[in-house]
Amino acid sequence: MDTQATVAADVSSSRPAEEETPWLSAREQRLWRAHLEVSRLLEYQLGRELQPHNLAINDYEILVVLSESPERRMRMTDLATATLQSKSRLSHQITRMETAGLVLRQECPGDRRGLYAHLTEHGWQTMQQVAPDHVRSVRHHFIDRFTPEQIDAMYQALAPIAEHLRGVRGRA
Amino acid sequence: MDTQATVAADVSSSRPAEEETPWLSAREQRLWRAHLEVSRLLEYQLGRELQPHNLAINDYEILVVLSESPERRMRMTDLATATLQSKSRLSHQITRMETAGLVLRQECPGDRRGLYAHLTEHGWQTMQQVAPDHVRSVRHHFIDRFTPEQIDAMYQALAPIAEHLRGVRGRA
Repeated sequence: MDTQATVAADVSSSRPAEEETPWLSAREQRLWRAHLEVSRLLEYQLGRELQPHNLAINDYEILVVLSESPERRMRMTDLATATLQSKSRLSHQITRMETAGLVLRQECPGDRRGLYAHLTEHGWQTMQQVAPDHVRSVRHHFIDRFTPEQIDAMYQALAPIAEHLRGVRGRA
Repeated sequence: MDTQATVAADVSSSRPAEEETPWLSAREQRLWRAHLEVSRLLEYQLGRELQPHNLAINDYEILVVLSESPERRMRMTDLATATLQSKSRLSHQITRMETAGLVLRQECPGDRRGLYAHLTEHGWQTMQQVAPDHVRSVRHHFIDRFTPEQIDAMYQALAPIAEHLRGVRGRA
């Protein structure tokens, strides 16, 4: 789970001073590890608790994104951007979800800019059925473990980072 | 990026009162979204900044985990657990990394419990070369964006959640 090497000393001493980035301090390092662990274990656990519904966590996310879109559909390219997936990976996923009857891929008449993914009625019903369990998971494993003060403090700390990262990605 | 439906009202009103889980409040919801965004965009961005080194973020993680292990090797099963990957997915990844000369898969003489992944000297050198850039990315996109107080407060909030999630996973 660690992505900082413990070889800090060896490596930094072998680099010229002007290029040096200070290694993480013990306090920074423990936060970085905790963040990575929570991110990954939470995604893993939420995915696990969606399994009885025969949904992967990425499937659920697509159901939600489409359900929030006008006419419950989205251009494939925009859906890839919204879900941070490559177009080819999304395409495979949508094929699976199409087989399960959750979405439908269709060309939009008069729009030559490509295919749309539509949420089917079955997809919509599935999401409504799954959502309460998913919120229960999110509460149990994450939200309900913070005090109200922590909820606000965490948001204050994370929101500017989310904005920064959206900007970086937008420029890429 | 959202994994809570905006259909809160419809769904909760159609479920019996005794089963109800309260939907996220606006404050909880914005934290949940910020957390998801930061998790995913950060993983995406760190991966992007490893590309010039011809490494995926999962490759880097494996280099780090192996470099921290005794004799710079680990049983494949334990490596899968440590990196939260399925055995089959890890196996594919190790095959790619073996082709790149970063790791070596070997049976351990006298141990019938399976294969080990070893870090090669090239793998070790690669990690040492990449680590400073990676730390720079982690600082620039995450750690250096918190005040020292936020670093500690975030850790206090996240550490019990990481522990909870490790426990849940251990029992699975």
